[in-house]
Amino acid sequence: MIDALDPGGPVNSVPPNDVHAAWLPPEAFRALGSRRSLVCGEGTLVDTVRDEIARACVRYGGSTDRPHPRPDRRPADDRSAAGTAYDLVLALVPAGLLPIAAAAVDVVYRRRYGAGTLGEEGFLLARHTEVTVVLAEAPAGLLYGLFHLVRLGESAFGLTRPMELHRPAMRLRMLNHWDNIDVHPVMGQVERGYAGGSIFWQDGARREDLTRVGAYGRLLAACGVNAVSVNNVNVHATEARLLTDRLGDVAAIADVLRPYGIRVHLSVSFAAPVMLGGLSSADPLDEAVREWWADATKRVYESVPDFGGYVVKADSEGQPGPFGYGRSHADGANVLADALSPYGGVVHWRAFVYNHRQDWRDRSTDRARAAHDHFVPLDGQFRDNVILQVKHGPMDFQTREPVSPVIAGMPGTRLAVELQVTQEYTGQQRHICYLAPWWSEVLGFGPWGDDGPTVAAVAAGASVGDAAERGAAGDGGGLVAVSNVGDDPFWTGHPLAQANLYAFGRLAWDPRLAPTAVLDEWIELTFAASAPNGLGLVRRVLRAIMDDSWRTYERYTAPLGVGFMVHPGDHYGPDVDGYEYSRWGTYHFADRDGVGVDRTRASGTAFTGQFPPPWRDVYESVESCPDELLLFFHHVPYGHVLHSGSTVIQHIYDTHFAGVEQVVAMRQQWERLAGVIDPGVHARVRERLDEQVRCATEWRDQINTYFFRKSGVPDAHGRRIH
Amino acid sequence: MIDALDPGGPVNSVPPNDVHAAWLPPEAFRALGSRRSLVCGEGTLVDTVRDEIARACVRYGGSTDRPHPRPDRRPADDRSAAGTAYDLVLALVPAGLLPIAAAAVDVVYRRRYGAGTLGEEGFLLARHTEVTVVLAEAPAGLLYGLFHLVRLGESAFGLTRPMELHRPAMRLRMLNHWDNIDVHPVMGQVERGYAGGSIFWQDGARREDLTRVGAYGRLLAACGVNAVSVNNVNVHATEARLLTDRLGDVAAIADVLRPYGIRVHLSVSFAAPVMLGGLSSADPLDEAVREWWADATKRVYESVPDFGGYVVKADSEGQPGPFGYGRSHADGANVLADALSPYGGVVHWRAFVYNHRQDWRDRSTDRARAAHDHFVPLDGQFRDNVILQVKHGPMDFQTREPVSPVIAGMPGTRLAVELQVTQEYTGQQRHICYLAPWWSEVLGFGPWGDDGPTVAAVAAGASVGDAAERGAAGDGGGLVAVSNVGDDPFWTGHPLAQANLYAFGRLAWDPRLAPTAVLDEWIELTFAASAPNGLGLVRRVLRAIMDDSWRTYERYTAPLGVGFMVHPGDHYGPDVDGYEYSRWGTYHFADRDGVGVDRTRASGTAFTGQFPPPWRDVYESVESCPDELLLFFHHVPYGHVLHSGSTVIQHIYDTHFAGVEQVVAMRQQWERLAGVIDPGVHARVRERLDEQVRCATEWRDQINTYFFRKSGVPDAHGRRIH
Repeated sequence: MIDALDPGGPVNSVPPNDVHAAWLPPEAFRALGSRRSLVCGEGTLVDTVRDEIARACVRYGGSTDRPHPRPDRRPADDRSAAGTAYDLVLALVPAGLLPIAAAAVDVVYRRRYGAGTLGEEGFLLARHTEVTVVLAEAPAGLLYGLFHLVRLGESAFGLTRPMELHRPAMRLRMLNHWDNIDVHPVMGQVERGYAGGSIFWQDGARREDLTRVGAYGRLLAACGVNAVSVNNVNVHATEARLLTDRLGDVAAIADVLRPYGIRVHLSVSFAAPVMLGGLSSADPLDEAVREWWADATKRVYESVPDFGGYVVKADSEGQPGPFGYGRSHADGANVLADALSPYGGVVHWRAFVYNHRQDWRDRSTDRARAAHDHFVPLDGQFRDNVILQVKHGPMDFQTREPVSPVIAGMPGTRLAVELQVTQEYTGQQRHICYLAPWWSEVLGFGPWGDDGPTVAAVAAGASVGDAAERGAAGDGGGLVAVSNVGDDPFWTGHPLAQANLYAFGRLAWDPRLAPTAVLDEWIELTFAASAPNGLGLVRRVLRAIMDDSWRTYERYTAPLGVGFMVHPGDHYGPDVDGYEYSRWGTYHFADRDGVGVDRTRASGTAFTGQFPPPWRDVYESVESCPDELLLFFHHVPYGHVLHSGSTVIQHIYDTHFAGVEQVVAMRQQWERLAGVIDPGVHARVRERLDEQVRCATEWRDQINTYFFRKSGVPDAHGRRIH
Repeated sequence: MIDALDPGGPVNSVPPNDVHAAWLPPEAFRALGSRRSLVCGEGTLVDTVRDEIARACVRYGGSTDRPHPRPDRRPADDRSAAGTAYDLVLALVPAGLLPIAAAAVDVVYRRRYGAGTLGEEGFLLARHTEVTVVLAEAPAGLLYGLFHLVRLGESAFGLTRPMELHRPAMRLRMLNHWDNIDVHPVMGQVERGYAGGSIFWQDGARREDLTRVGAYGRLLAACGVNAVSVNNVNVHATEARLLTDRLGDVAAIADVLRPYGIRVHLSVSFAAPVMLGGLSSADPLDEAVREWWADATKRVYESVPDFGGYVVKADSEGQPGPFGYGRSHADGANVLADALSPYGGVVHWRAFVYNHRQDWRDRSTDRARAAHDHFVPLDGQFRDNVILQVKHGPMDFQTREPVSPVIAGMPGTRLAVELQVTQEYTGQQRHICYLAPWWSEVLGFGPWGDDGPTVAAVAAGASVGDAAERGAAGDGGGLVAVSNVGDDPFWTGHPLAQANLYAFGRLAWDPRLAPTAVLDEWIELTFAASAPNGLGLVRRVLRAIMDDSWRTYERYTAPLGVGFMVHPGDHYGPDVDGYEYSRWGTYHFADRDGVGVDRTRASGTAFTGQFPPPWRDVYESVESCPDELLLFFHHVPYGHVLHSGSTVIQHIYDTHFAGVEQVVAMRQQWERLAGVIDPGVHARVRERLDEQVRCATEWRDQINTYFFRKSGVPDAHGRRIH
């Protein structure tokens, strides 16, 4: 009994024709769409699974069934009675587990995974007597299982397949959109957005046509993201009202994302009781304020029963917060948490609090210390449904930073680690910079050394003393990232920047995935329409271009972890002294003798003391500090010899010349794909590579000239420095 | 026969109550208003004179008459029959010269001034048998004579007064407004405006109430300005249409300014035939383009018969121009000149043409050379009604620059010298920087040395070989300046910045006036309401604060003529390397050994070769180059010893410490005026002085730290450098 194909399907799941399909082109569904499938289970997400398969079958000639509603009355020729009639079965375990699959699966499953459950989102994949089986305990698991099949393609139906159990490492895998409803006069519509306008908002209102939001949700589900906040953490006047009189807009977006298992969250202003409620104060200990939040939150859940919660940037870069009332950030976060608690919502409370009016003459203040100084004393004071959202590094998403010591410092607090998919400081989607290797380093880093849990494990819920592997889908805060998506036809401005979005979702699901493997997945899905031979070339070229692109970007920009040196305001392109005399706390202190920031306990800001062993000592010593972070922790002479054997000044010259050469090579590689891939994609990337070559050259020349003028040391190889 | 006071008067001549009266408070008219006056003559401007006196008389009890329309029938008791009945007579010479005054005046006049005429704007002031007499040959002369009397106050009626003849040195004394009709997203409404919005335009349209424009015209007439362009030289889409369908707006403004002898000019886009006329080209040699300009100009004069002409920024910073059609700037200017010629209009064609996309690595290109390179070869090719408008320095209104060599380079071209009253690079009307001493230096400079004509004389029409004094009201291009006025209640943001506007007009009328004398004039008019004793204190304090304020500003900003070092974009506050790696051609080339731009013929860009003797040699030699321009012309080591005896590096430290001390002293001086002057003025200036102290300190610390880090040379006096 084949489902009549519902031409409506989930209305918003396929992007308009003029929008790039990203990693879900129709061709990626070939293996699924040419098989006979049975989908067992009920519910919105199971319907989504059915619709996806049905759509693929229309294209590729397969079929999809649902179990007969009354098994005891099914006719003799009903195919759903016999598992062998199917190539693929996806089933909710409690609802309609087929005996033939269950028996086999159950044995293997128990042997390998013990009595553990699949949970809300996990699934099990097995191949049994020429049937591929996906089992889940909850609808979301079936949806993620479906997209796992899409990734596997034909190999999901290979003769032999080991059984696989997939559960997400993090329960919360979230994207923050820094989208404004109104266009901000300086920041534009999407703050730090490099892909056009917002997919949610336009001309001061919610977009009437949310088709792209649906298509976006589908892409996110396919890489594992399950939560989205829909407005900028800098909450301006218009956006503040999403919490109250614009709630209908939030509900409409939630309706479109729900079929993909994605919850909607909202950035709110801490001053909302004053701005929106007309109260005279937003003091979190004021009873009227508590009541206002409770009441406002109740109304939110009346509109959006599965609402995720609030994201709050408080006392940060001019946003209001509890400091204004002499209260702590725990007081501030808890009042929102109490309001959300009855409904299962959470508060993402950002730890990005620092003095953004620093005097550059004040050498004792160190912005790197700020989050630890502010938040570690509050450990244990936050409600269980508060998630402290910590940027992965102590500064602000630079190309290279140490891991934030806050991550090791708050065992009594749920922590989310925040990454930045949007390439604010990493080329703004005009440069190719595949960020998964960077995130992978961060997530695999052991804040307590090699024996303790990793950063990923902390985000998953582990703490000091736990083993490195603990914390799968535990009660941690998970991973959060700033999205890089806009209304650009390629979603992300640079078509290859789609890989970063994809990789974020995949690493949030499983931080142990190798970045190269994730890249391969993304390539094979995205370029599935290429001829089989062509795909091999695409893979080789993209690996050559992308695998090392983050380190290439690092080579031609600020050296040795010193950070910034970008053009103020827009953060694009070099300006070595651009932030040197500013109020932002981001300095390099280069003089004629040396460069770098002394953050040691011995003679500097003592930031090293915020780390537990071994890092507090590794970073403290100029001998043991890793080269790539040397200038983050130490001020050294230009003649200082690195572990690499090079001097600092010669390292600067060498890496900058090499970085540009590598970008030029990337551009040459790309030309090999002319005529092999979609011409629109090829042209857009070519145009951006021209800009990357130009900008990298500018970085090289400004950095080299700057340090040559300061140091007076000539290049050992006599290359041209202007 | 006292004129019935016309309560209408010139409707727009007195500013609204909430707007500061600037240098025309009612008290400035006390001497005039308490006298018995006779005004002889007819016409709009004579009416203005009458209305001014009548208004003063209402306040101070004097009287004003006009001659009996039929002298042969006047009654015996008519006072206008006998000069002795009046304290003051203002008369147009051809129309109604009173015999008693004429006889005396004529003798003295011929003896002192020969057969020269007073011209369109001159006037003669005499004191005869206790009557003060002002004579003019044309109505504008009478108007300027009136305001001269206002300046003189009681001393115009003293027992003895030598006869004075006043004729403007320049025929054209013009202000350019860089006002946009629409608010520009980056530049705001008034480009480089520091005094609020435009007085002409608001919310995308002409202001309905032009009262302030009238009041502005009155202020300008009182200092001698006779022409105004009403829109930005960067002509955007909306403003381009002032030439055609928005012509009514121009006419309305002209109507309000006409009673003050001020002609309206318009900035036009060179691409107007394409933008507005729908032609496919704006090629100046295209016949259809010539016809379009002729036709458009004809319509302009139908609306505004005394229209002044066009201001054009062509092929400059992105504006369209003749280069786009392979034509010269002479071709471009002449097509507009031909269109204006039948009506007596002029083209102000700006010489501010340079490569604003320079590669900072290119050391052979020198922006300072650009205007000379572009325009000197065209000398003699411009029509007589083309005025080439040349910035006074070769760069862009820095605190210190040499005089532009273009001024000495085009004997066959009418040149206007352009100054900047708006304080773009001199503190943006948040800092006190009285600019008249700077302008006075420029205007008194001899491009050919001490024996030839001055810059002022060139602007007045003199050329090489003329004597220094020649050129009064000759056929030169005159002086032009960018206005500093907006809709701020104090007109200029900083109340003391009014002095710059006043001084510009006065120096354009008479460049030989001492800046201190002009300052005194301005003080006595502006603070006329102070008690006599109070005025003495005001004068002492303001002299102490303002006389040297330009040099103080120079001390704490970019040193020794090197220029720029300002924050890019907004040009406010220090950013030493802000333009160092930019495309704007504004570099200082500081390295660990030295600083400055080598513009010599011997080893640099050969800019010195654009000057005639003696300057080509004075500037070429590091020995003879004046200290204040040393780094403009030479790259020298930090240890280079100046004529002052100090090294360059110690000079930098010393001037920056001294500059801040002087600003602190200015703020102390200002406190002496608390309670003595208008509290609103006092509070506004106090607030701005706080900002000036803050910003000067920032300049001092950034400049000193920057050069200490580069040079490694400690301050000889051991002061704190961060």
